[in-house]
Amino acid sequence: MSLLVALSQWDAETWRVRFKTALPKHDIVVLGEPFDRRAVHYVASWKHPAGALDGLPNLATIFSLGAGVDHLFADSRLPNVPIARIVDPDLTTRMSEYIILHCLLALRQHRRYAAQQLIRSWDDDRNQPAAKDVRVGLLGLGVLGLDAASRTGHNGASFRTFAAAEQLPEFLAHTDILVCLLPLTDGTRGLLNLDLFRQLPRDGRLGGPVLINAARGGIQVENDIMTALDEGSLQSATLDVFETEPLPQDSPLWNHPRVTVTPHNAAMSEPTAIVAAIANQIARIEAGYPLENSVHAARGY
Amino acid sequence: MSLLVALSQWDAETWRVRFKTALPKHDIVVLGEPFDRRAVHYVASWKHPAGALDGLPNLATIFSLGAGVDHLFADSRLPNVPIARIVDPDLTTRMSEYIILHCLLALRQHRRYAAQQLIRSWDDDRNQPAAKDVRVGLLGLGVLGLDAASRTGHNGASFRTFAAAEQLPEFLAHTDILVCLLPLTDGTRGLLNLDLFRQLPRDGRLGGPVLINAARGGIQVENDIMTALDEGSLQSATLDVFETEPLPQDSPLWNHPRVTVTPHNAAMSEPTAIVAAIANQIARIEAGYPLENSVHAARGY
Repeated sequence: MSLLVALSQWDAETWRVRFKTALPKHDIVVLGEPFDRRAVHYVASWKHPAGALDGLPNLATIFSLGAGVDHLFADSRLPNVPIARIVDPDLTTRMSEYIILHCLLALRQHRRYAAQQLIRSWDDDRNQPAAKDVRVGLLGLGVLGLDAASRTGHNGASFRTFAAAEQLPEFLAHTDILVCLLPLTDGTRGLLNLDLFRQLPRDGRLGGPVLINAARGGIQVENDIMTALDEGSLQSATLDVFETEPLPQDSPLWNHPRVTVTPHNAAMSEPTAIVAAIANQIARIEAGYPLENSVHAARGY
Repeated sequence: MSLLVALSQWDAETWRVRFKTALPKHDIVVLGEPFDRRAVHYVASWKHPAGALDGLPNLATIFSLGAGVDHLFADSRLPNVPIARIVDPDLTTRMSEYIILHCLLALRQHRRYAAQQLIRSWDDDRNQPAAKDVRVGLLGLGVLGLDAASRTGHNGASFRTFAAAEQLPEFLAHTDILVCLLPLTDGTRGLLNLDLFRQLPRDGRLGGPVLINAARGGIQVENDIMTALDEGSLQSATLDVFETEPLPQDSPLWNHPRVTVTPHNAAMSEPTAIVAAIANQIARIEAGYPLENSVHAARGY
């Protein structure tokens, strides 16, 4: 049985070596070289070219090499087989670090104190908000969102979420820091737009709503973020993801004084952990156990 | 029975009103006005002038209006009566926030990504350290240190401390981020000096040792911090406290590219919480219970 490594950006040879080490009894083949298509039972994909998985008659499972699977559904000819995504404790921890770091930067007014340091100003401001005065609203309560919520709670902030779409307005009306960890689907594309930002309260303790998006750039409308920052419906934004990545050189987000840009590295995972998770799944499947962390194709995540 | 509010910097009238609200059956008097010195059973002090507590024959307890008591021992004529400091959950939470924030800023290379953003550089660096690869060493395991350690542990980092002075070299040799939450005493004055910094390992995952001091400025030697930053025995420093406060305008710390200066506001407490804690102590004393959070004069904290 073969595992096909199907990539468009990363170095396939490096991944072949990693998989060969973890799965010594399997053939590891990569897109672009000749291989027996009937022998391929598994695909490990990161943004494979559309159609590249055609003609694999014995394909049983597709593994995403990341936590997101929107790159798979971008292939309209994706074979109709079970799909699994990566759930890795290391990746989850890094994402929670990122969320906590950027919530604390907002809470503790880091931008203000960095600006004060530049002008040698000693202004301690004895009226700082406490964590309990700031409401963190989390969009997306999957593995990543639940971990971030749990850890944010440990650190004293209150966090809120909502269960049904009709609760969204009330959720937004009580959110000072809006954290997005949603998957990108037809239902979430463009969700973070001006209409939504205008539903956030401007009278919270942080001087205006704060947006943190560490999910997918397709969920945000960047023109609307700029408008919201200028009109005050957003006070600041921390973005790890963008409509186009790398973020184009002419994007006004780069040098907006209240925007933090990070290069889609909120939660990287070590390749060895990814490969170990997939090898473990294959061992489970071949021992007769069900697939874990499977994706519902109909809902898109 | 009277409570004497003994301040040198803060507004005494504001504190008188707060104490009168919390202790309606007690007389509240302030330094500088005439009062019956024999009626004073309690003093609430923040940096009272040396000698100001002479001639209080019935003084039973001195309360510090902050977590630190070094300001009391700066008065060589301090009456020999029980002393209590403030232990306030809100102050403790804020201190832990500060420690976690500045540990995460170092771990997640915030200074680097902020610099990249300024030059519109998209460099994600797929080799970021994980929290588990970074060793946080905490000097000072009192109420604040234990809370910070507990919460840092929740967030995935390993932390270390030591129990006896002879363990300090081994402790330092395995510390990537050195966090100081010690009290200022004769034993800790000037402890954070070049000799100590040179015992920190330079080969950790953060590119060099990181210092975070949120305790007291008297514990650090600022000339040595500058030397250590220049020679590489410190990679960066986050300082909330300074030998002289406010930090003098001509201090080279203000504009060192790897120093973060905050204006001694890592952990402010709300005055109402401080007053409530002292009123609660007085009620306990008058009901016959022992003083809580008492200070050992001989050890200085």
